[in-house]
This record gives sequence, C-alpha cells and structure tokens, in this order.
Amino acid sequence: MTFTFDHLYQFTKEILLRIGCPEKDAALATDVLLSADLRGVDSHGVARLSGYVRLWEKGRINSQPHIHVSYETPSTAVIDGDGGLGLVVAPFAMEVAMEKAIIAGTGWVSVKNSNHYGIAGYHAMMALKHDMIGISLTNASPLVSPTFSKERLLGTNPISVAIPAKNQPPFVLDMATTTAANGKLEMLQRKGENAPLGWIQNENGYPTTDPKGVKAGGALLPLGGDREHGSHKGYGLGAVVDIFSAVLSGANYGPWVPPFVAFLEPDPNPVGVGLGHFFGAMRVDAFRPAEEFKSHMDNWISRFRAAKTTPDHAKVLIPGDPERELEAERKKNGIPLIPAVETDLRDLGKRFGIEL
Amino acid sequence: MTFTFDHLYQFTKEILLRIGCPEKDAALATDVLLSADLRGVDSHGVARLSGYVRLWEKGRINSQPHIHVSYETPSTAVIDGDGGLGLVVAPFAMEVAMEKAIIAGTGWVSVKNSNHYGIAGYHAMMALKHDMIGISLTNASPLVSPTFSKERLLGTNPISVAIPAKNQPPFVLDMATTTAANGKLEMLQRKGENAPLGWIQNENGYPTTDPKGVKAGGALLPLGGDREHGSHKGYGLGAVVDIFSAVLSGANYGPWVPPFVAFLEPDPNPVGVGLGHFFGAMRVDAFRPAEEFKSHMDNWISRFRAAKTTPDHAKVLIPGDPERELEAERKKNGIPLIPAVETDLRDLGKRFGIEL
Repeated sequence: MTFTFDHLYQFTKEILLRIGCPEKDAALATDVLLSADLRGVDSHGVARLSGYVRLWEKGRINSQPHIHVSYETPSTAVIDGDGGLGLVVAPFAMEVAMEKAIIAGTGWVSVKNSNHYGIAGYHAMMALKHDMIGISLTNASPLVSPTFSKERLLGTNPISVAIPAKNQPPFVLDMATTTAANGKLEMLQRKGENAPLGWIQNENGYPTTDPKGVKAGGALLPLGGDREHGSHKGYGLGAVVDIFSAVLSGANYGPWVPPFVAFLEPDPNPVGVGLGHFFGAMRVDAFRPAEEFKSHMDNWISRFRAAKTTPDHAKVLIPGDPERELEAERKKNGIPLIPAVETDLRDLGKRFGIEL
Repeated sequence: MTFTFDHLYQFTKEILLRIGCPEKDAALATDVLLSADLRGVDSHGVARLSGYVRLWEKGRINSQPHIHVSYETPSTAVIDGDGGLGLVVAPFAMEVAMEKAIIAGTGWVSVKNSNHYGIAGYHAMMALKHDMIGISLTNASPLVSPTFSKERLLGTNPISVAIPAKNQPPFVLDMATTTAANGKLEMLQRKGENAPLGWIQNENGYPTTDPKGVKAGGALLPLGGDREHGSHKGYGLGAVVDIFSAVLSGANYGPWVPPFVAFLEPDPNPVGVGLGHFFGAMRVDAFRPAEEFKSHMDNWISRFRAAKTTPDHAKVLIPGDPERELEAERKKNGIPLIPAVETDLRDLGKRFGIEL
C-alpha cells in the first residue's frame, strides 16, 4: 500500500511527540527518517520507527536529551548526544561542523552517546546549500565479519560524501562498507530468493547464498566479498569508520556497539557510551572560489554521465542519481510500504491512539 | 636477484641527483620510493625510477620545483607542486597539513601541479609520530571504468589512513579503490596466469580473466567488480578521491589526468595543472587525550586480532600488518627485484655512468 509523504510525516511526528520528543526534535527526526523512505533506503525509514520506540521504552533512548559540545578546538569538536535519538543528535553535530568550517575552513565532529542516525546521506547533504562538502560516517550494531573471521565485529558502517555542483545536481555518495546492505538481504528473505555469493557467510565462516544465513549466526561480508576480490579493503574502510566515530569520541566500537534491536541487551562491560558518528564539513572556498569549483564539478559530472556504456547498460550513473530520481517519484506518487511494515505501524499507532 | 636497502638507496639517490634534484629532495624521494619496495608494493618503488627519469627528459617533471602554498585558511591549504616529483611534493604538503593541525586541530591540503607520489601510505604515516591521524589520497592515470562504462575515466585512486596506537603497531590502511591494483595484474601477466573474474573487463566492457585485457584497451574494475557485488561503491570512492585531489585544487581530473608513461602525451586541452593529491592530518588530542585514544586503539586492535577465524585461515589481520612484516623481513634480508626491473635499472645506470 502507498502512503503520501504528508500522511506518513504526520503519523511519525505524532508518535515521536507521544514518546516525549520536543516539537522541534520530533519534526527534525521525522524529516530525517522520511528522507530514507523517499530516497529508497526503506530499511532506514519508517520501518524503524517502532524500533526506536522500543528502545525508548527500555530506557535506552532519551527523548529529551541535552546534546552538547564536550570538547573543541578551532576545527574539531566532540559532542555528547546524551543518549538522544541519533536522528536529532546527528543534525546538531553537523551544524557544529559547519559552524567550525565557516571560521576555520573545515569542521570535524566526533559524536558519542548517540543512537541510530537514519541514512548517512541526509546529514552529509546538509552541507550542500552552504557550498560545503559534507561527510557523514557512523558505526552500527555488529553484523559484519572482518576478512578471515567468523565473528561479527563491525556494523555496516556507512560512508556518505556530498559535493555541490552548479547546474548539475550534487554528487552524493551514500554507501555501506559491505557488499550489500542488510536491507537488501531482508528483501531477498521476504521474496524467498537466494543472495549472490560474496554478500554473506554462514556461522562457520563459509560463503553461503542463503539470505537467512546472517540471522542464523553468520555475517554480512565487507565490500569485496572475499580476499581475492578485495574484502580486506571493505573491512579496512569499515574499521576506519568505526575508529573515527567511536575511538575518537569515546563511544562504543566494534563488537561493543549497542544493538539496535531492543530485545538484545548491550554489552554489560561497555568500552564507551552509546554509539558513535563522525561528521566533516569543508568550505569549498577554503580551497578555491566556489563558482570555479562548482563549474568544474559540472564538467566532471557531465563527462562521467556521457561515458560510453557497456553493452548491457544505457547510461552511466553519478552517485546520488538513483536516490534523487526515486525521491522525485515518491514525492509525487507516494511511498509504498510492504505489508509487514504497514502492520507494524498500525499496531504502533493503536498503542498511542493514532490511526495510520 | 636481491639487493640490500642501502645499495638500492645509494643507486636511486645518485640517479635523482644526476637529473638535477637538490640533495635534500633526492634523499626524500629515494626514501619514499624505497618504502614501497620495503613494504611489498613493488610496482610503486624502484621499478618506477626509469619512468620518472623519462618524464623528466620530456620536460614533464621539474627536478628543482618551487613548491608553495597558493591559498590557505586556518585548517586548509592549496599547494602548487610546480611540476615537481610527487615524491617530494607530497611530503611537503603533508607537513603543511600537520602544521595546520597543530594550530587548528586538523589540517587539509589539496595539491595541484604534481606527479606520481609513490605509495599513499608513506605520506599518511608521517602523521603517526606526532600523535596525529594521517590521510593521503591521490588521483592517477585513467585505467579504471566506472560501473556500466567501458571507458577508462579514473585512476586506481588510493586511500590511505594511518592511525596511531600505544603498544600495538599503528593501524595503516593503504588501498587502491579498485578490486586489484595494477601491479598485481602485471605479476599475473609475467607468470602467464589468469586473473579472477571481477578484476578487469575487456575493451568492449565484458568481464575477462585475461590479464592482458587492460593493455588491449580494457579497464581495471572498481572495488566490488560488478554492480551486484558493489562496484558502484568502489567507483564512488575513486570518484571522491579524484574530486578531493583535483577539483578542489585545480589539478586535472578523471580522463584528463596526465599519463605516467612518457610515451603517451597528456591531453592537449587540460582542465587543470598536473595531477592532484589530498592530505589530512587530525591531532588525536583535538578530540580526546592522546593516551586515552591510543589505549583504546590498542584495545580495538587486540580485539580484532584475537577474532575467531574462518576454517581456512590462522589469523585475522589488522590493516598494515602484512606490509609491516614484509618491511622487517626485507630490511634484514634485502629487496628482491624481478629480472625485468633489474635490467631496466642497469640500463638506466649505464646512461648516467652508475653501476647497479
């Protein structure tokens, strides 16, 4: 079934108000969550709303946090999210990064004591309207095994980089550091289809095509899939995201990152507080005049878009193209929800006396 | 045949002095080049020396450059390499990044008008002894096709991130954004072996296992190999490296990057000057006390090193482990050169009256 953006927006915001979020926070968190649904990252949108509520019920999310800078230099800051929704903590942190960039040229913010922050791209894209490059990283619940390991020690630890252009739409990379995002596996499970080799391994560390392999104790694989195809690089990138997000800030890292699902308890001996993010903002004109930079970005984008294609494909894409096209389509025609998510939201609504 | 580090060092430095490098530059460039041979990145070490000399003979490398900051803010700078050896320009730029970091917390430097800078990791690792995180990126001659394209529009565009620890050796990621580095293909060619699927495509854009495919007009593939295995992510990362290195600085980007080989002419209509790099330095104590950070890095590294392994592997590696182990071995037992490289160096030496 398909819902309009406005309908899902009102519903989501109302739920967040009911768990105690201040008006402004509820609006912001809703905006972040729904941007995932609009951009086709369905696993990170309203499908997670009941998960956030369950964490709040368990006392693992603070709906009225005192988010604050706990340390800073001219171009850096550490932010304590006070256990708030990552959906609210992250935009706060990105604003701080951009304020630093106005003065120092760039700003870099590592965040502790936060929670799941939605799609990485939302926060990186905040920089675009200020003619800045935005960078957004986060660690996440451990689901990924390093190369040669059968233990789950890393999250899907995404990297997003948003770069402004002039007449062309912006360049927006937003990628998990795994071969495939967890949401894609869930889609295959629902359809009863197999996964390609290189996406997951089973609980004994052997490659498998069974999409249920991860839930059965297996793991997602780092980008590359296996050593011969460069999985040590995906593992290395995921590790950098983890370290920048959590070892720099004082959050939990690696296997200590608290699970998103409320039915799993966080490690009783944490190495930090909450989970961590990392944000960067670079003023384009801290390097060269913004108009000059953006003209060259237009040229870069045009050249790559015009590249000769392989026989089976009609066009070469620029990072951000698929999400932007879907966003335009869904703003116009609505956001489709799969039955499981629709039911979940209706049940959630009933508990708070709100109709979906 | 195997040569001692000292022997290759003297030989290389002498050649660089003969093409006009000042004493200090020759020593530095030699140090950078040989660090590749020590760390097992044989394609980026003395094997390239005659290539640099040929570029100098063509007037495409300036052996006595006036490397200088052409623009700056408290945390950023653009550096004009004046056509110098990247091996000398890059450490200069990394020093500037670190000087910025001392004052502003972090420093970010984009470089134009440079040339091939050796291994990315050398420059990133310069930050370690100052308790800083070092980042090093560069674009390179186009050999890589974006996902869905059969044109070569990107270089192998590496990413290196070096992070200090306390008692553990540092974490040093140094990776091409392709499935496999070009040097690995060259090894297979010499051995007459096939490449795994996912490394390269032929001139028509079809996957191939023939390692000669790239020289015949094909291309290296972005990390991931194909769309189903995430090649759009490797492409996106390589693109970010290109943009940070060249669109920010005013160097050539994408297909306009000048070829390393002297027998290919640079594009007659360049979009910038030379090729580009990007460096970052972040003071660890711009986020939290350095000792605290480094203790947690020790904990991170120990935990990952102790991870349970898959059945076919004895241990889980930390980025930088293989290179560091090889470096210790080669410092002790010498650096092996394949016959083709040895002959090439002997011929080069003869022209300058220097015996290998």
